[in-house]
Amino acid sequence: MGSARVIFDRWDGRYAARMAGVRSSAVRDLFAAASRPDVISLSGGMPDVRRVPHDAVTRATRDAMRHDGPSALQYGGSEGRAALRQIIVGLMGESGVRLGPDDLIVTAGAQQGLDLLARVFLDPGDVVIAEGPTYVGALQAFSVYQPDIHCVPMDEGGMRIDLLEAELRRLGPRGAKFIYTIPNFQNPAGVTLVPERRRRLLELARTYDIPVVEDDPYGRLRYEGGHILPLRALDADVIYLGTFSKILAPGLRLGWMAAPRPILARVLLAKQAADLCGSAFSQSVAEHYMTGTGWRRVLADLTSTYGARRDAMLDALSEFFPADVTWTHPEGGFFVWVTLPAHLDTKALLAEAVQHGVTFVPGSDFFPDGRGGNCMRLAFCYESPEQITEGVRRLAEVCEDKLELYRAFVAAGAVPAAARVEEGALR
Amino acid sequence: MGSARVIFDRWDGRYAARMAGVRSSAVRDLFAAASRPDVISLSGGMPDVRRVPHDAVTRATRDAMRHDGPSALQYGGSEGRAALRQIIVGLMGESGVRLGPDDLIVTAGAQQGLDLLARVFLDPGDVVIAEGPTYVGALQAFSVYQPDIHCVPMDEGGMRIDLLEAELRRLGPRGAKFIYTIPNFQNPAGVTLVPERRRRLLELARTYDIPVVEDDPYGRLRYEGGHILPLRALDADVIYLGTFSKILAPGLRLGWMAAPRPILARVLLAKQAADLCGSAFSQSVAEHYMTGTGWRRVLADLTSTYGARRDAMLDALSEFFPADVTWTHPEGGFFVWVTLPAHLDTKALLAEAVQHGVTFVPGSDFFPDGRGGNCMRLAFCYESPEQITEGVRRLAEVCEDKLELYRAFVAAGAVPAAARVEEGALR
Repeated sequence: MGSARVIFDRWDGRYAARMAGVRSSAVRDLFAAASRPDVISLSGGMPDVRRVPHDAVTRATRDAMRHDGPSALQYGGSEGRAALRQIIVGLMGESGVRLGPDDLIVTAGAQQGLDLLARVFLDPGDVVIAEGPTYVGALQAFSVYQPDIHCVPMDEGGMRIDLLEAELRRLGPRGAKFIYTIPNFQNPAGVTLVPERRRRLLELARTYDIPVVEDDPYGRLRYEGGHILPLRALDADVIYLGTFSKILAPGLRLGWMAAPRPILARVLLAKQAADLCGSAFSQSVAEHYMTGTGWRRVLADLTSTYGARRDAMLDALSEFFPADVTWTHPEGGFFVWVTLPAHLDTKALLAEAVQHGVTFVPGSDFFPDGRGGNCMRLAFCYESPEQITEGVRRLAEVCEDKLELYRAFVAAGAVPAAARVEEGALR
Repeated sequence: MGSARVIFDRWDGRYAARMAGVRSSAVRDLFAAASRPDVISLSGGMPDVRRVPHDAVTRATRDAMRHDGPSALQYGGSEGRAALRQIIVGLMGESGVRLGPDDLIVTAGAQQGLDLLARVFLDPGDVVIAEGPTYVGALQAFSVYQPDIHCVPMDEGGMRIDLLEAELRRLGPRGAKFIYTIPNFQNPAGVTLVPERRRRLLELARTYDIPVVEDDPYGRLRYEGGHILPLRALDADVIYLGTFSKILAPGLRLGWMAAPRPILARVLLAKQAADLCGSAFSQSVAEHYMTGTGWRRVLADLTSTYGARRDAMLDALSEFFPADVTWTHPEGGFFVWVTLPAHLDTKALLAEAVQHGVTFVPGSDFFPDGRGGNCMRLAFCYESPEQITEGVRRLAEVCEDKLELYRAFVAAGAVPAAARVEEGALR
């Protein structure tokens, strides 16, 4: 995208080879359109920070300045402030993970964790195993280091472990640098890895001697069903990425990485090179925000808010979409994954949807290889239930034209049945 | 250093090749020692944030929450907030640089700018030209991308342009990916690139078609002499790195990069992959802090404070160090570069200095190749004039033993005169 905006670049041909594979995402490029007041955004995964009390943040800053003195304004250790790491230990404990403050470091959101892991582990051509579809930010972070990303399909129970096993058998022991998974309310698929598959995934990772990277931004945002233990709770060698973006606010850019200490030592060196250290100011404010119980009330409010929005979206999908369209049933998180009949191209649909006043993210953004063209990700985190209902209605309207055309083609036998069928669908 | 702390690493042999060249710095590893209350720190380049009024930061945060509403807590554009970029345009204008808000992006300190530039430009084996000695964080950031760093010596007028020209002639047109320079009060040497050399450097860069990266963290911290125009004021193709760490506080992790737009477009893609976007919270707080004139009073106070500390250090060096030791005369910034007779190893001296209650950074940290072993960087930014005087006295005491031994060797003809002479000295 960068080069598309540029008419003449006298530095062309002098950039590093790694930049050739780095692309912008449709999500980012939609930001301009999505900010028009008449457009309903079902695209961005933005937490509803309007529900975070601003006074609480101001108070936390005042306390940070009073109690932490100059240290909150100074450079700090690359590993992050001890008090915040202790708070994270508490959060992890509530999720069922036992560790100490030296088993984790603070990062600039979970995104920096992804970048640092890729930086530390990936040589060009190395294999990474991920779910397909997967988080677009992970694809961006990894692609800088030029790996070969292999995607394992999912169904409603999360990553298909039988297909993972087949892939691992094909690659052999240490055949991949790591397995990247978002077990809870996956972005973008919305599905959750069931407990027996978690255990099996860890067994396979041990057998094939491949580290597992567990990305868990939405773990605390569950709207139905019971908590499932993170992979890190079952195996201390799992690398775990967490974030304050969904507990507090993305604007502070605070996340963390828990990992075995030899890995953490290398990640720390990589982090020093990347930014010297994280923001002591943000960290100190977060420490004081997380003191007391106010943040728990905010989080409970956010969770019930998101839950109601998910219900609105699932209801609207049932109401407005026809039977040849399928979607997932997320138990938490921010996203629903919608699959249209094969041959329908959601990327081509997007411009029309924006004209109709609704945005989504085309499915192909979530694959490294252009698959998922007949799918889309819908986010229910940001708009009100009424807006979500209206957004889904508008989207169904845009789709219906194409669907009718498609059905006519199929009736006429004009669509080759075997080609591109269900390419991005969960199966 | 990472591996040195580790007894057993089952992931050994699986890290990326790039990590082999990434080392920790003695500066960082000294943080523990430097925090002992009886130790005088002449090592870290930490701004004296104790002089930044905490109430002003709390007020700025309250205003940010009130006026910027939820946007300060949300994800933002990777390029940074428009209001802060407009403030940076004003700051650059005061330094003599004319540009618009779309000619720059906000980064996580200038360090992230260094990382992103290296990421965008450097393939393994590419040549980078830098001053020798140079900023240790730049060496760290660049080394991740495995370049070959060529160092050009300096004298009191900054980079030796005659030696730069010889190097460029040797390498040929486009023979390096960029020239990295800190023209003002260089870290660690403390010297400033004189105006005629600035013009000559830019001519050479044009002739050999090599981008120039100007790192200017200390530009506004001048204690004597008149302002010198930045390279970016003389040539719009110069890539300029600035920071709020010395104007406001490092704890907010805010810096910026001004660059030609084609380069900026690629840097933005690299930044998205690295952290999605910078902290909207820190940016918004900085916007409100920089409104009005309070920050100018704080900066004026900091400047006169640092100036008095510089004077104390230069006086103490004259008082306590013998004639066979030389040092630079910084007109601003944070650092003095001290050169002991060749053959003296400041790294070996450091442990003894810490025992005597004073820290510094050994010169070899500032070269990619182990040169500078007989030099050291002294920072005058953080301790009081009295402490600085006492610190230099302690350091001279530690050095004196070695110097006497050295003189005895020289007198006995035992030191090979040609070997390692002036290796890290400015010449």
